Amino acid sequence: MTQTMKTFVMQGIGNVETMDKPVPHAPGPLDAIVRSTAAMICTSDCNTVNGAIGERFNHTLGHEGTGIVEQVGSGVKTVKPGDRVVVNAITPCYHCHSCQSGYSSQCGDEALGGWKFANTKDGTFAELFHVNRADANLTIIPYSISEEVAIYTADMMPTGFGCAEGANIPKGGTVAVFGVGPVGLMALAAARLLGAGQVIAIDKIPQRLDFALEYGADAIINFEHEDPISEIMKITKGKGVDSSLECVGGPKAFGWCIEATKPGGTVSNSGYHGKGETVPIPREGWGVGMADKTITTMLCPGGKERMQRLLRLIETERVNPTMLTTHRFEFDEIGKAFHMMMKKEDNIVKPIIFFDAY
Amino acid sequence: MTQTMKTFVMQGIGNVETMDKPVPHAPGPLDAIVRSTAAMICTSDCNTVNGAIGERFNHTLGHEGTGIVEQVGSGVKTVKPGDRVVVNAITPCYHCHSCQSGYSSQCGDEALGGWKFANTKDGTFAELFHVNRADANLTIIPYSISEEVAIYTADMMPTGFGCAEGANIPKGGTVAVFGVGPVGLMALAAARLLGAGQVIAIDKIPQRLDFALEYGADAIINFEHEDPISEIMKITKGKGVDSSLECVGGPKAFGWCIEATKPGGTVSNSGYHGKGETVPIPREGWGVGMADKTITTMLCPGGKERMQRLLRLIETERVNPTMLTTHRFEFDEIGKAFHMMMKKEDNIVKPIIFFDAY
Amino acid sequence: MTQTMKTFVMQGIGNVETMDKPVPHAPGPLDAIVRSTAAMICTSDCNTVNGAIGERFNHTLGHEGTGIVEQVGSGVKTVKPGDRVVVNAITPCYHCHSCQSGYSSQCGDEALGGWKFANTKDGTFAELFHVNRADANLTIIPYSISEEVAIYTADMMPTGFGCAEGANIPKGGTVAVFGVGPVGLMALAAARLLGAGQVIAIDKIPQRLDFALEYGADAIINFEHEDPISEIMKITKGKGVDSSLECVGGPKAFGWCIEATKPGGTVSNSGYHGKGETVPIPREGWGVGMADKTITTMLCPGGKERMQRLLRLIETERVNPTMLTTHRFEFDEIGKAFHMMMKKEDNIVKPIIFFDAY
Amino acid sequence: MTQTMKTFVMQGIGNVETMDKPVPHAPGPLDAIVRSTAAMICTSDCNTVNGAIGERFNHTLGHEGTGIVEQVGSGVKTVKPGDRVVVNAITPCYHCHSCQSGYSSQCGDEALGGWKFANTKDGTFAELFHVNRADANLTIIPYSISEEVAIYTADMMPTGFGCAEGANIPKGGTVAVFGVGPVGLMALAAARLLGAGQVIAIDKIPQRLDFALEYGADAIINFEHEDPISEIMKITKGKGVDSSLECVGGPKAFGWCIEATKPGGTVSNSGYHGKGETVPIPREGWGVGMADKTITTMLCPGGKERMQRLLRLIETERVNPTMLTTHRFEFDEIGKAFHMMMKKEDNIVKPIIFFDAY
Repeated sequence: MTQTMKTFVMQGIGNVETMDKPVPHAPGPLDAIVRSTAAMICTSDCNTVNGAIGERFNHTLGHEGTGIVEQVGSGVKTVKPGDRVVVNAITPCYHCHSCQSGYSSQCGDEALGGWKFANTKDGTFAELFHVNRADANLTIIPYSISEEVAIYTADMMPTGFGCAEGANIPKGGTVAVFGVGPVGLMALAAARLLGAGQVIAIDKIPQRLDFALEYGADAIINFEHEDPISEIMKITKGKGVDSSLECVGGPKAFGWCIEATKPGGTVSNSGYHGKGETVPIPREGWGVGMADKTITTMLCPGGKERMQRLLRLIETERVNPTMLTTHRFEFDEIGKAFHMMMKKEDNIVKPIIFFDAY
Repeated sequence: MTQTMKTFVMQGIGNVETMDKPVPHAPGPLDAIVRSTAAMICTSDCNTVNGAIGERFNHTLGHEGTGIVEQVGSGVKTVKPGDRVVVNAITPCYHCHSCQSGYSSQCGDEALGGWKFANTKDGTFAELFHVNRADANLTIIPYSISEEVAIYTADMMPTGFGCAEGANIPKGGTVAVFGVGPVGLMALAAARLLGAGQVIAIDKIPQRLDFALEYGADAIINFEHEDPISEIMKITKGKGVDSSLECVGGPKAFGWCIEATKPGGTVSNSGYHGKGETVPIPREGWGVGMADKTITTMLCPGGKERMQRLLRLIETERVNPTMLTTHRFEFDEIGKAFHMMMKKEDNIVKPIIFFDAY
Repeated sequence: MTQTMKTFVMQGIGNVETMDKPVPHAPGPLDAIVRSTAAMICTSDCNTVNGAIGERFNHTLGHEGTGIVEQVGSGVKTVKPGDRVVVNAITPCYHCHSCQSGYSSQCGDEALGGWKFANTKDGTFAELFHVNRADANLTIIPYSISEEVAIYTADMMPTGFGCAEGANIPKGGTVAVFGVGPVGLMALAAARLLGAGQVIAIDKIPQRLDFALEYGADAIINFEHEDPISEIMKITKGKGVDSSLECVGGPKAFGWCIEATKPGGTVSNSGYHGKGETVPIPREGWGVGMADKTITTMLCPGGKERMQRLLRLIETERVNPTMLTTHRFEFDEIGKAFHMMMKKEDNIVKPIIFFDAY
Repeated sequence: MTQTMKTFVMQGIGNVETMDKPVPHAPGPLDAIVRSTAAMICTSDCNTVNGAIGERFNHTLGHEGTGIVEQVGSGVKTVKPGDRVVVNAITPCYHCHSCQSGYSSQCGDEALGGWKFANTKDGTFAELFHVNRADANLTIIPYSISEEVAIYTADMMPTGFGCAEGANIPKGGTVAVFGVGPVGLMALAAARLLGAGQVIAIDKIPQRLDFALEYGADAIINFEHEDPISEIMKITKGKGVDSSLECVGGPKAFGWCIEATKPGGTVSNSGYHGKGETVPIPREGWGVGMADKTITTMLCPGGKERMQRLLRLIETERVNPTMLTTHRFEFDEIGKAFHMMMKKEDNIVKPIIFFDAY
């Protein structure tokens, strides 16, 4: 008799439902099966349901998860059944050209190829889920850290930190963070941790700007009430910022990033650009292509080495991501949680889902 | 009685003429006056006359020049009257924030602020010209190198080399050079010198593609006859190139650069983007902003330190830029030379102008 | 009648005294004369008096200073008489090869060539002092910052921060700081600001280790009571640290740095190595030269661009260096202060000297 | 009946012999068995026999090899039986912390941990050998390249190129290569390919210096007849070189590297330092630890991504390593070849061994 488990799936664009599925097959020799303890819903899950990666059916959602190792392949050496683990949203092979080149998020020499959960395989919204290359992709959670905190190292922290790391922030330099949703807030915290001397947060939602202040913003701009470029120029005495972080994914924020950044500065993009044939660079703000402005892009970097460093930053109290957890649900209630996330109801930022195994 | 000298000036958009001007005033304490021996006309001079930087009258053109030091300020230590020198198109102060940050081409914290000749002061198409910060901006030409070669270190070599240096070319990596005019050809030569394993040149002018082969292109693509993206994908077995060099300045070439570059690769822009409100990034070719593709931009880097390294590459026969010199004129004939350059007549690539002092 | 001023000078190895000197001559066209408001004594001043740079007579000591601009040369543009300024210990020309290469502390293509105050010219222990290249080397102090704080940007902060910046600290990585005197404490603060996830301070003086805890050390090791290497290995679970900061200047600390650092890690040296023909690298701890361990070295980086970033870190309350100020003196009492610093009496860390102009 | 194969082994320090061994067991799921076509003897094999890594018995030597894939594990995707392959001397796992940090040669968080062949497992001097992580460590040889050339990508080219890549060579900069044995010659070729403007080779063996000229040295110094430091200072007009490459492994060459390198320059060490408690840095030549001189170290970097780039440099005729192949043997004669290599008889540089499968 096949064992089954509860999962939460996409059933065509616009539809989600709870369904029973067979528990995952035996893992490959280097892989693992993990029993979920907690998961989080990401705006990317909503994008997926809205069609961002095309039609999907019976497609288990979720790419942020913690759990307990259930089973490992014969070649797995560093984790064993019973270990408490967190897994990154991105699970590269680490053996292909892109991985060996240092671009593991582009695994398989494909754009975004490292993103497998809820994209090219079933995701983490299930009682059990499969993880490829367990020695590289599973990270043991230290005893002192709970799942509720550790789960932030699955996507929010590595994406936000990666965005800040890609921004060439000079020590004591000035930084503008465009969009302070959960990724933007983690990017803001990271900018502080990387030595930014002045961080300016830009958004239109007052609650998010309040969060920004809590995460250490030195100034906030509500772009519905003020022009962000002229405000940034005032704050920086006409110079513009050293680094801009695009944490929105849209032409308006992207254009502001280019314009807010001084000659010689960097725009680091973490936003998903989902619409249009092209993404426009403001020609003059870009210094007609000759102002030594750099535009970098990235996708959540994975791998246990980086995740252990992020966990260390939590352990040593450099950052507390749990301020972002605005809502808590049991796995039974995931449909309701997902609905709220789709509608961004009740000022939801990050909802956490607890499983029976927690 | 004021001494006068011959100059070649812009007289409003679309107009050029020869005119007499007073010889330059006494240099400031750190500056110098140089007597021209040779100059070259750049497509940027044509852009200027066509209005790229707005109206200018009595405005001496030219930013590529060699000469003999005529006079130096009291604080100048490393050059003296009689020295044979070459001066970069870009002459930064080296004391402002941008200069101290390593972005001297953006001197004065202004986009393109390091560009002074024929922009914010008189240029090199004159019997004598003024150079600011002589110790930093004048480079003595070694005995073994003639003015005809050295003058390439004023703009063509540093711009082309800078473009290649900004492209993060992996050793043995693949490179596409879009546009093989003089800057593109120097960028191509530089890509070879920086360890590129395969260099592909793209243009529509057969003569330029022939030059590209002479400068070491491994493959050429005439984009009027073949689709450059599908050809590049064929050559690179579907992967795209590690680095694309934009040496044109236009949305078509820029878009191709984005699309031709693999995830994790770099587009280095040296082209001047002169038209339109925005410069479009192809959204999907850019990996929706998540493919670890980087876009860098630059303006000809100056300074004697870099120029001496470029001169060394000439001395030790790593590169011979003079293949680009297709036409030669006396200063008396500069009007004719300029006209040919405006019209790109007679397959002109780079015309050199000799002065009486040569 | 020549005006005179009070100065504090070295009179041969081992001797110091107060003497009157003529006030400095008119500055060069790009230089300035500054009237001192505050100064600090550095252990390097003691090294100088002890013979580190050879014999010196009538040699005004001091390289950390703040003041009020008294007079500027004709070409100075960004500071004017009356401005409150701080000047870095290192005052490069910014025009030579080393400066243009990004190694301005090695100005003039000479090791340590950027160090001029109290080395190749008179220092800051005088009522007035001369500053070369004022536009590049004088930094205006923001209104909100007092001289007592700003003076830390002259040497302690840039040296400590430079040491940390040269250490390639991974975000969330582990760092060992060997020697937590004033430079080491600033390096420790900088390591925290640059994202270190765990910082270990090593010294033998309990008071300094207490300071280390106040500046954010996660662990401290008193090497008179514990073996630092085995302690570090315990803390890092046998791996060693990502980065070691040498803030002592001696073979023992240097050797520990090599041994404490993991394969692939970096040792950043800021210590002055004053003795012996050679500085020994422990061969096995260095991985027989094949362990991807890097050793970097540096000298206090100057320049107003960097200093303004350091001042911003003070303004936005990222760091408070004044905990280090253990003693305060009037300029009249500098002999006594210097004596205490030579003997490291009364647990002195940094003594500040106030001038009449303060 | 167990099948056997011929191997060439170390039997205790100082002893080698041919012995029969069972053919390798079935590979793990991600591994492969390769049938040898060619191998090369490295000076490191001689060091091993001389005791560098301690006692070893029945220990198959050799870490440079090409072959034909015989068998692959169930999880191997990119190579299959019959493929012509080359394998790097270093075969990391790519999943551990060091590998994810970019230091795969220090695999397993151990100094030199990526070095497995003839160190922690049997080597390539056998009719068949085992390769771990075949998808990451086996590189298919392009049709146009023979085993005789491809084998140089196993160790000589990646080590030499890695040494040059670690040296921060400025474009057009000056480079000194200390020791022009096979690794040094490849480092020299790499320095040229990376844009060095002037390369100086230092050795005492005239034949090697001749090779250096063939690989593009601009100047050679025989240190038995001339003082290398004063010669380098003459050539560089007293400045020293930008980068020194240590391709010897010894205190004398290492010390010269430090002294020959200008302030702000880099010493890149590839030599194995096999003797003494410590490796001495000349204190004054090192600028008392304050001259911005950097010392980097490395071990042959592996991985198919890099090896494919090296193979591309061969395919596009940027480098021809086969000049180094001075001697050719059948596998039957390997004892004789090894003896010659131990004694460096007959001006041997690199001997190639051909197997029956070739």
